[in-house]
Amino acid sequence: MNPDASGAPPATAGKTGSARAATRRKARDPLAPDPAGAQAGGAGSAEGGFDPHVPNVDYGVLDNLIGYALRRAQIRIYEDFVLSLAQWQITPPRFSALVIISRNPHLKLTELAHILGIARSGAVLLVDALEEMKLVARRPAPGDRRAYSLVLTPAGRRTLEAATQAVVAHDAHAGSALTETEQATLKSLLARLAPPRAG
Amino acid sequence: MNPDASGAPPATAGKTGSARAATRRKARDPLAPDPAGAQAGGAGSAEGGFDPHVPNVDYGVLDNLIGYALRRAQIRIYEDFVLSLAQWQITPPRFSALVIISRNPHLKLTELAHILGIARSGAVLLVDALEEMKLVARRPAPGDRRAYSLVLTPAGRRTLEAATQAVVAHDAHAGSALTETEQATLKSLLARLAPPRAG
Repeated sequence: MNPDASGAPPATAGKTGSARAATRRKARDPLAPDPAGAQAGGAGSAEGGFDPHVPNVDYGVLDNLIGYALRRAQIRIYEDFVLSLAQWQITPPRFSALVIISRNPHLKLTELAHILGIARSGAVLLVDALEEMKLVARRPAPGDRRAYSLVLTPAGRRTLEAATQAVVAHDAHAGSALTETEQATLKSLLARLAPPRAG
Repeated sequence: MNPDASGAPPATAGKTGSARAATRRKARDPLAPDPAGAQAGGAGSAEGGFDPHVPNVDYGVLDNLIGYALRRAQIRIYEDFVLSLAQWQITPPRFSALVIISRNPHLKLTELAHILGIARSGAVLLVDALEEMKLVARRPAPGDRRAYSLVLTPAGRRTLEAATQAVVAHDAHAGSALTETEQATLKSLLARLAPPRAG
């Protein structure tokens, strides 16, 4: 289910040329699994990036949908994120999980899933991968013998610190064609999308 | 990999009460697979929907990122899409694939993957699911004995027609808190995100 979880190296400050080449090869594969086409960052990366408007393709109703406009933007951002973080093998969900775990002590797996808006089964795979990468560890949860809480390892803290700088730079690139006012407008409009249904 | 592909019923106009209840139960599970937390529509749905700002959670740098603002909006839209289309078992990638296949004759699988920005392996799973749902069929491709092209079945065409109405209604709901001008602004800002890197 998670082809890149095994053998994903922990972060290292310096890399040899061949390790860097290996990282680059790896980055051309989707770092996150991509079943049923549910996630971005796939084949497009290997072919010079996702083209949101492939010539001579009729997108039909998709061109009118807010949801598909969001999807197009998300694929491009996802691809740039994965390339920007390739040296750490950190995908967007992995980064989000590391941030949430680092800032919320005694977090349980189900809480992490709830916060990230993913299924518990997805959170299990995510944490398994981070544990194999030696970035996250499970600790017995105080007062609940069946549960455990999640912590960053020392390597996890170092990796998160370096990765955060790379993510902030990536995000600045993602918004680089927008003024600060436009970025604020975008965030505010996004926050108003898909209001909860009554009932 | 794709737990809901087998046994996913083709679209039917009327449903019995128990079939509708089954659909609702099914809709509370993620319809699309969710490995490594890479896709939305997961556990949150079962707990009354995704909360982009869970109380007492420290989101750290995530709160500042355009990418995470996009992710929050995408989860909410994904959840509403899946619930809106539950009677057809149609997820966003399935809908996009049906639209692209219907409007672009003689489409090959690799072309579909390229257009949707997904890995070829993801497109295989996606088309397998649509084929099991009897919505899509593979036909020998003219002039290429190793390839095939994708077509909608008659049931696929009927389902797409009905599902499109539901998607348009869902998308209208997604943007219902925004004026038409704001929606146009949003689409224009989204289209300018993550410009290609030089080189």
